[in-house]
Amino acid sequence: MCANRKAAEALQSLFPDMVGWRRYLHQYPELSFHEKKTSRYIAEQLAELGCEVKSGVGGYGIVATIKGGEPGPTVALRADIDALPIHDEKTTEYASKVPGVMHACGHDAHTATLLGVAKYYNEQRASLKGNRRLIFQPAEEVSPGGALPMIKEGVLDGVDAIYGVHLWTPVPYGKVASRPGAFMAAADEFSIEVIGKGGHGGLPHQTVDAIIVGSALVQALQTIVSRNVNPLEPAVVSIGSFHAGNTANVIAERVELQGTVRTFNTETRDFIRQRIMDMVQQTCSLFGAEGRLNYREGYPPVLNHKQEAERFFRIGREIVGEQQTLYSELIMAGEDFSYYLHEKPGCFMFVGAGKESLHAIYPHHHPKFDLDERAMVVSGSLLIGMAEDYVNGSAPC
Amino acid sequence: MCANRKAAEALQSLFPDMVGWRRYLHQYPELSFHEKKTSRYIAEQLAELGCEVKSGVGGYGIVATIKGGEPGPTVALRADIDALPIHDEKTTEYASKVPGVMHACGHDAHTATLLGVAKYYNEQRASLKGNRRLIFQPAEEVSPGGALPMIKEGVLDGVDAIYGVHLWTPVPYGKVASRPGAFMAAADEFSIEVIGKGGHGGLPHQTVDAIIVGSALVQALQTIVSRNVNPLEPAVVSIGSFHAGNTANVIAERVELQGTVRTFNTETRDFIRQRIMDMVQQTCSLFGAEGRLNYREGYPPVLNHKQEAERFFRIGREIVGEQQTLYSELIMAGEDFSYYLHEKPGCFMFVGAGKESLHAIYPHHHPKFDLDERAMVVSGSLLIGMAEDYVNGSAPC
Amino acid sequence: MCANRKAAEALQSLFPDMVGWRRYLHQYPELSFHEKKTSRYIAEQLAELGCEVKSGVGGYGIVATIKGGEPGPTVALRADIDALPIHDEKTTEYASKVPGVMHACGHDAHTATLLGVAKYYNEQRASLKGNRRLIFQPAEEVSPGGALPMIKEGVLDGVDAIYGVHLWTPVPYGKVASRPGAFMAAADEFSIEVIGKGGHGGLPHQTVDAIIVGSALVQALQTIVSRNVNPLEPAVVSIGSFHAGNTANVIAERVELQGTVRTFNTETRDFIRQRIMDMVQQTCSLFGAEGRLNYREGYPPVLNHKQEAERFFRIGREIVGEQQTLYSELIMAGEDFSYYLHEKPGCFMFVGAGKESLHAIYPHHHPKFDLDERAMVVSGSLLIGMAEDYVNGSAPC
Amino acid sequence: MCANRKAAEALQSLFPDMVGWRRYLHQYPELSFHEKKTSRYIAEQLAELGCEVKSGVGGYGIVATIKGGEPGPTVALRADIDALPIHDEKTTEYASKVPGVMHACGHDAHTATLLGVAKYYNEQRASLKGNRRLIFQPAEEVSPGGALPMIKEGVLDGVDAIYGVHLWTPVPYGKVASRPGAFMAAADEFSIEVIGKGGHGGLPHQTVDAIIVGSALVQALQTIVSRNVNPLEPAVVSIGSFHAGNTANVIAERVELQGTVRTFNTETRDFIRQRIMDMVQQTCSLFGAEGRLNYREGYPPVLNHKQEAERFFRIGREIVGEQQTLYSELIMAGEDFSYYLHEKPGCFMFVGAGKESLHAIYPHHHPKFDLDERAMVVSGSLLIGMAEDYVNGSAPC
Repeated sequence: MCANRKAAEALQSLFPDMVGWRRYLHQYPELSFHEKKTSRYIAEQLAELGCEVKSGVGGYGIVATIKGGEPGPTVALRADIDALPIHDEKTTEYASKVPGVMHACGHDAHTATLLGVAKYYNEQRASLKGNRRLIFQPAEEVSPGGALPMIKEGVLDGVDAIYGVHLWTPVPYGKVASRPGAFMAAADEFSIEVIGKGGHGGLPHQTVDAIIVGSALVQALQTIVSRNVNPLEPAVVSIGSFHAGNTANVIAERVELQGTVRTFNTETRDFIRQRIMDMVQQTCSLFGAEGRLNYREGYPPVLNHKQEAERFFRIGREIVGEQQTLYSELIMAGEDFSYYLHEKPGCFMFVGAGKESLHAIYPHHHPKFDLDERAMVVSGSLLIGMAEDYVNGSAPC
Repeated sequence: MCANRKAAEALQSLFPDMVGWRRYLHQYPELSFHEKKTSRYIAEQLAELGCEVKSGVGGYGIVATIKGGEPGPTVALRADIDALPIHDEKTTEYASKVPGVMHACGHDAHTATLLGVAKYYNEQRASLKGNRRLIFQPAEEVSPGGALPMIKEGVLDGVDAIYGVHLWTPVPYGKVASRPGAFMAAADEFSIEVIGKGGHGGLPHQTVDAIIVGSALVQALQTIVSRNVNPLEPAVVSIGSFHAGNTANVIAERVELQGTVRTFNTETRDFIRQRIMDMVQQTCSLFGAEGRLNYREGYPPVLNHKQEAERFFRIGREIVGEQQTLYSELIMAGEDFSYYLHEKPGCFMFVGAGKESLHAIYPHHHPKFDLDERAMVVSGSLLIGMAEDYVNGSAPC
Repeated sequence: MCANRKAAEALQSLFPDMVGWRRYLHQYPELSFHEKKTSRYIAEQLAELGCEVKSGVGGYGIVATIKGGEPGPTVALRADIDALPIHDEKTTEYASKVPGVMHACGHDAHTATLLGVAKYYNEQRASLKGNRRLIFQPAEEVSPGGALPMIKEGVLDGVDAIYGVHLWTPVPYGKVASRPGAFMAAADEFSIEVIGKGGHGGLPHQTVDAIIVGSALVQALQTIVSRNVNPLEPAVVSIGSFHAGNTANVIAERVELQGTVRTFNTETRDFIRQRIMDMVQQTCSLFGAEGRLNYREGYPPVLNHKQEAERFFRIGREIVGEQQTLYSELIMAGEDFSYYLHEKPGCFMFVGAGKESLHAIYPHHHPKFDLDERAMVVSGSLLIGMAEDYVNGSAPC
Repeated sequence: MCANRKAAEALQSLFPDMVGWRRYLHQYPELSFHEKKTSRYIAEQLAELGCEVKSGVGGYGIVATIKGGEPGPTVALRADIDALPIHDEKTTEYASKVPGVMHACGHDAHTATLLGVAKYYNEQRASLKGNRRLIFQPAEEVSPGGALPMIKEGVLDGVDAIYGVHLWTPVPYGKVASRPGAFMAAADEFSIEVIGKGGHGGLPHQTVDAIIVGSALVQALQTIVSRNVNPLEPAVVSIGSFHAGNTANVIAERVELQGTVRTFNTETRDFIRQRIMDMVQQTCSLFGAEGRLNYREGYPPVLNHKQEAERFFRIGREIVGEQQTLYSELIMAGEDFSYYLHEKPGCFMFVGAGKESLHAIYPHHHPKFDLDERAMVVSGSLLIGMAEDYVNGSAPC
């Protein structure tokens, strides 16, 4: 029996375990940077499995290491463990028991999958070549994220390659998807303050009308995407909030804008940031106002290594078949898995988790979000498939 | 001694009374439509003076009637009595004792002046031709104002002419100012709701970005004054507030705008209202949004009757001298005295109340607003001068 | 018989002469700065009348001086003599015989009127106090105009007061109109060049799209009038032409804009000029383009001296009656009579020349423009009335 | 010897012929739809080679058919033959002898390549399976193009697959590039007329200022790309020209805009067209103007068939090597080869033709454009390689 099939069957037998872990975590979600109990739970499960566990890595991060019986490279696999400030509206038994907090993005299933992978590897330990490092990362949902602190504490030291998976309900259960190079966006945020000069609504000439400045700025910002960025380069500049003034007959002294920028490479990202900076300054001075930009870089884009993406397409075909292995379009959301890929070869992958027969498919971050739990088997098989292929080379069934 | 000098001297001798009344009222200000104690206080003072008083006219309004000993016309004089929701920052002894409420527009002094006038007339009663009706009106500061309810209750019934004064600190103490025809603006207010379709900040194509619509609308509205209104016709369209969205990375579903329109005649006012209506509809449909306009007409413009304005220039010259009697420019603020002038001949007048030697001159509605109390003498003399000139005809000293 | 009636009757008797002169000039119009034959014709007529004539004053200007028999002040009266580059579409006998050139603004009648006045004064010479200086000025229609060169050559030397009239068809025949202070606008012109960077229509990111810059500039300029200028101060900023690019699929490298500014005082005029300058620079640099503004001041506003305007109202009432003597609104057109008023006391006045019974009233500068010739009698009477009142003081009939 | 090497060597030996044909055509260029002599020259060369030739197909189109000695499919290969209205500024001997007309896009070399291919196939006729149809198409440069008329006359009847090549100087000599699916843009053009109401520059309220409308429209159009189109979908909307008004002090009655739209699929194309239509109507009615849109669809996008693009990658690797076979980015220019691909399986491909050692590389459509003639050998080899692979299946060397 070929390696992939063997792993898939093993994972299938671990499915009840994974469901159990996942549903437990689902009921007791914790917010980013506050994953105290989650972390303890993971450590306990790993210890029970007999893994070598290190807790408190870069906060509530946990690293489990499986030392293989034979020499070989070290491959890292990562799951994120944090939940979201959303109130669970599901009626399932395993719905969140914590008011206002919910695993609405599937990180519970990521964690459960990686626990399953840990169990699998632990059992295979003797025949394993090299080491497998399983990273349970906190705080993916909130910039600056949990990946960087873990990297700073050395989770990538000695690692040869790293893989990660996101269960993704817009992709149907049974399919997997990824792409070489840019895959998920850099998602930055910014706020702009325009300071004019307030005054009587009937005497505009004594004021610098901040709303005029803000409106002109919103319009000017449209030209970044419509004129300044290469049309072949996907990019978004959105203003999400605009607040100014309190009453009808007083001209507003200041405007506060907030917005987001989505890009897929550093040049475009830096260019847009500079363009916004210039536009804020120049538009304000055009109208005699002052402007301040506070630009906060989010995660960099997820850039899959070309060779590792090719590995994904090969392994995906073996596990779910050619028709089910998709070349993904670019994804406008961000992921701090990007930091790992900045350091080491690797690939981030989507595993389809949407199944209409069970229930309606709600988007990620929706109060009724749920997923097809069978995707954990695919996900674990894919992670193991990628790691073993890296270590052992292509071995078609 | 000519009539005007006699009145001026009498008023001068009443100055301490007027200061007393004014400072009392200044310490106990009440908001528009809530002038309960103020009204009672006025009624008590009037009763003490021996006037015939009618309370509760159109709310907290009070009417005192002085019946002259000889036949003649009925002339009305009006003061407004309400205060503003502003916290007094003055350090004078007579500063407001009511937190967050303040006579920051001089209505206390208007009231005190008219009490002085009442006392004067009461003493002159025997020789007076016709009647004098003294109107103490509540709620000038807040549309729809206190004038209309009093008119509805008949305060203008049988009245031949009406005069009113505003103490005005931008005009130096010692000067008076008015003009024929349009004098103070119609000040309307409006609110606009733009309803787009919210969504993910990185996926603008799935949304109707309401901030885009609102910004375009602000810009389009500028052309009403810059292009559509006759440049010889003063008009203002100001957007005072713009609120949309909560966060950087979500596209806003709706925008709420508030604004004011200032005009000096009905044609321009109606035209601008229609133009705003059209622009809201068309700009919204340009971007696939929906728009709603809520337009609230404020007071109509104050239109002084030509002959009465000429009377003002003549009386003003007699009382304060030719150099001190000014042809006022148009005033962008509104006044519900306009309703009286719509019914009866009359004139609204400014009496200079700014005196730098006392303290800095703060604008009306400023937390440190104060005025030169001597202006009450000028103000009372002017009201009496106008009334007596109307009754007796021009009688140069 | 009072002076005004006497003059009016005399002018009435000169009506056939004035019609003759006017119709001759109407048939042989000459453009601004090219009034060669017109000038010679005027000089010949003046010589025939026996006047002392000086030709070639500041170009084709002519000055006739009537020296009075008695001592007194020198009063100047001015007519403009140039025609317009418009093709006469009238069918009257006296229509223009010069293709493409036409007296479409009534300067022919101004000239004929002043010839009539010359004849009147010449006949009155002996009893006249002081001198009358009659100025026939070329080139009123084209900035920088003919007034300045004549002033430079001394036409105002020794002059105590100056008066001028414009026949004005929007005012009905029989009426006269003027106002103190600002009367006619300063009318400036400007051109703006925006230099971006052209390129392929499908590759906007390689260009600086000048049309984007020009459009944003047009929108920003609207806020000068809508926000920056005192709403009580009439002002206009209009962009009259916008030219950029040649073809659909190439992004334009440059935009050329032309526009006009209308104001009634120097502060507003200078403020707007500076505002345009700033907006051109800042809008261009906002988009990475370069901008150049060429601002050309036209005539300054016509500012009537207050005392002379009062004289106009008095004399007007005497000549055409109170109801026919109008307080004019501000006029958005310009006039280089403003230069004379900058140097000497005086007044510029409109004399109604529209009469519907004769023919449709076409606006000034229209190819079918004509006027009620009887207005020349009113016009001459008004000029003489103003001058003699200045010299002799008020002498009511 | 494998098929590809054999063809490449044969083509190499035909290189002098191809250079001769190309340089002759280069000296005698003809504009789109006027390729009379070019067509005759091609027909003569083909006849000389002994081919079966059909002239006058859909205008100046020519079709040569090589009937193979053995049964098999029919494969079409296409070259375009027209030149551009550009004046040749090269100093080479073979520079254009026709003033103002120039082969500035390499169609001369396309033609010469296909003549070389014709010669090769003619010599291989006996052993050829099926037929080869060589299409020499006029008028690629000017919409609606020469492809459609030829298709209407049946050039694709019985064809099983079609291939075409563009020599492309931005790609260095020695490399080839293409991609599956969308490859080159749909390039549409449009013109917009805005009809306002002209008038005096000082009296904007009597007008509908068309420049205001045009400027607002330019700004609104930016939001199509910045907000309405999926950011992952490359699209461009450019306004190339903006013309309105003649002079500074007259408000313009109308604006004429021209622009281009670039898209890569029908949904986006239709969506943008509808969006422009709506925006023209709504922006005009927002300001009280009327608008007209004239939208002219250019060529549809070039959509390479997936299987044929895979063939390209395989054949490219065989001919120029793996490193030299590029996955092309999307190209913003258009091509009427799209019409053939709408009817039949096939692939359009770029062959690198830029070589810096020879001379500076000027962009296509530049007056100094030239290319590396050796690219004709690569180009011919690629066309033959594709055709034979289609017929005979993969046969690795």
